[in-house]
Amino acid sequence: MSNTAYVGLLGRGTVGDAFHDLLADRADAVAEATGRRPQVSGVLTSKEGSFDEILAASDVIVELIGGIDPARDYVTRALRSGRHVVTANKQLIAQHGDELAEAAREGGAQLRFEAAVAGAIPVIRVVKESLGTIEIEKVFGIVNGTTNYILTEMARTGASYDSALKQAQKLGYAEADPTDDVNGADAAAKMAILARLAFGAPVTLEHVEYEGIEEISSDDLSYAKELGLSLKLLGVAERRGDALSVRVFPCFLYPGHPLSPVEGAFNAVMVQAPAIKEITMSGPGAGGIETATAVLGDVVSVLAGGSPLPEASGKVKIAKDISSAFYLHLEVEDRPGVLAKVAEILGENEVSVRSVVQRGLGDDARLVMVMHEVSEKRFKAALSKLGKLKFMRSAPRSIRVIEEEFK
Amino acid sequence: MSNTAYVGLLGRGTVGDAFHDLLADRADAVAEATGRRPQVSGVLTSKEGSFDEILAASDVIVELIGGIDPARDYVTRALRSGRHVVTANKQLIAQHGDELAEAAREGGAQLRFEAAVAGAIPVIRVVKESLGTIEIEKVFGIVNGTTNYILTEMARTGASYDSALKQAQKLGYAEADPTDDVNGADAAAKMAILARLAFGAPVTLEHVEYEGIEEISSDDLSYAKELGLSLKLLGVAERRGDALSVRVFPCFLYPGHPLSPVEGAFNAVMVQAPAIKEITMSGPGAGGIETATAVLGDVVSVLAGGSPLPEASGKVKIAKDISSAFYLHLEVEDRPGVLAKVAEILGENEVSVRSVVQRGLGDDARLVMVMHEVSEKRFKAALSKLGKLKFMRSAPRSIRVIEEEFK
Repeated sequence: MSNTAYVGLLGRGTVGDAFHDLLADRADAVAEATGRRPQVSGVLTSKEGSFDEILAASDVIVELIGGIDPARDYVTRALRSGRHVVTANKQLIAQHGDELAEAAREGGAQLRFEAAVAGAIPVIRVVKESLGTIEIEKVFGIVNGTTNYILTEMARTGASYDSALKQAQKLGYAEADPTDDVNGADAAAKMAILARLAFGAPVTLEHVEYEGIEEISSDDLSYAKELGLSLKLLGVAERRGDALSVRVFPCFLYPGHPLSPVEGAFNAVMVQAPAIKEITMSGPGAGGIETATAVLGDVVSVLAGGSPLPEASGKVKIAKDISSAFYLHLEVEDRPGVLAKVAEILGENEVSVRSVVQRGLGDDARLVMVMHEVSEKRFKAALSKLGKLKFMRSAPRSIRVIEEEFK
Repeated sequence: MSNTAYVGLLGRGTVGDAFHDLLADRADAVAEATGRRPQVSGVLTSKEGSFDEILAASDVIVELIGGIDPARDYVTRALRSGRHVVTANKQLIAQHGDELAEAAREGGAQLRFEAAVAGAIPVIRVVKESLGTIEIEKVFGIVNGTTNYILTEMARTGASYDSALKQAQKLGYAEADPTDDVNGADAAAKMAILARLAFGAPVTLEHVEYEGIEEISSDDLSYAKELGLSLKLLGVAERRGDALSVRVFPCFLYPGHPLSPVEGAFNAVMVQAPAIKEITMSGPGAGGIETATAVLGDVVSVLAGGSPLPEASGKVKIAKDISSAFYLHLEVEDRPGVLAKVAEILGENEVSVRSVVQRGLGDDARLVMVMHEVSEKRFKAALSKLGKLKFMRSAPRSIRVIEEEFK
């Protein structure tokens, strides 16, 4: 086998473009990880390129056309001829998974589709490989970013469904024709794929009952807010006795539910099984570069085969000048001038105070402060000086603080 | 190669026992996934068994002894002789990763260690395989369940460090000698492993600066509560210019931080990279069966080699009688007897009301109700009857509700 891995790319839309750039950008890393340097052997678009020529020149086919035809024919032929295929095509896998698995067996090729579900979140790999042989009870989550963005906006601003949808389209979170996202069909295809892997049963799109969010009114969301509920389009695949249930529907969640803080275009998937209790994974659900990253992960797995990725190399250089924010707790004597002296020492060391509380009286007096981010060296210098002050009743105590406030 | 895969088990503690049982229980699933039925070829404990005999009789060695000696010698010899090794031994990987990688290369064998970090959460696989070739900026999280349990209890009950530690020992969340957990050494070893994989640099335990939670007082936690902060023992591995920083320290988080809701013995890891923004994974961090599940996932990967796990088989049976809780929104005429009639129809169909709010007056009157879980068939029958009532000003609207309240 040559040291070059030829990758044939079908489709050159947003994800196709992002993947093309990412593959060039990370070619060295792929070569290091797999022993083979990837090179694009050809690109097929609706305007140019010949599938047959690209197939003949490729070790791996990356299918990013989407839809059933002609992707189905191309993927089937590639697998039968022994080429590994990596695809982001959820409808193709959800509707024709059996046929493609059969073609892969015939050709002795791998078919990978991490990018088909939940973008960069590696939920396929986790369900199929890490948890592949345990008894999974339930897989559920938010698997469509468009609808989660719309529902988040409706709840946040009181906007109507129509105006939230327009906003989503303006920001690129919804397509010009949003039908498959908002009616639940997109989420249904993803849940069919997850159910297939989690339960080892040939679930297809036909087995999934689904509803969308088109009928949700801003009224419902405002009542829900009063009740402390958040609304999500949930996909649920679970065992019910000796049968399965695979469904997609809008659903209210109580606060504290692990999925209720998942907002905007983010996705999240939970897996429940007796052996693992529950594992939750969340991250950006879609986007060109995120999806392209998932595709690249699959390409690397296909090229690496069963061999372990190589171990670390080079020399480790550890950073010295770390900055952190700090909480500071000082037990002090209760007399005038104490705060001024403390503030002076902090100021001399360029430590800036974010908030300060004085607590207790007499023998129980103390200062509790939160600092802004500062060089740890400087802060320690200040701390050492503070510790030597006569009015300090015990050694100063400090704990780091992450200042970043999310949302 | 025979159709049996011989698995030599070193160590028979909590995790060893759980793995032994799980392997027997899931032998069929492993055989289906890999084409090879696993069978234990021998068990080595401090009291019985010969390593040399077990090695000679095994295809895969599962090392669950822990600690450096004699595990280091056993694992090195197994790898050199071409046996794949699966281990949960974080200290061994963190301190002697290079040496073991070299032995694996020599023997052409795989070394896998998913169970060494974050129990059943497949963070190793995700960082190494899914994200293996993108530029990771930062990996951080809560990677020690013992300390997270202690800090959660201190914050929740106001308990002192000592009494929370005793409680953790009583419940099996902390060992009789908790030193390595509470002083941060355990988390430091895990962060060395994650840094090594995320940055492709030979980071070892020596490069990690760590602090523990022994000095945390219940005072600090009560002040933090007032400030809305939660305290976690964080592990952080990040790029700082051309250097790395790998550290473990107790740290306050503001509310809304994705790690702040991670409580008790749970672990969570976040990965940040330009290509994926951020991915968060959370789940139970330790426990015999959870760790054994991670070990089994690695054994399956080793046995499956690069071949794809087989696709689904059998027939799909979809459950018919689903139950759900519902939110119900009725626009009604504003006159006496309306609520009574609605309640009657719900009652006849065994739909039980959890809460009801009457809102608006005259032409704006409406009932907003939340139901307990009920058969969907029954609820739909009630809905159809409600829709036909004369005082209904528009079609009833219903949305499912997840009743389960977490924590």
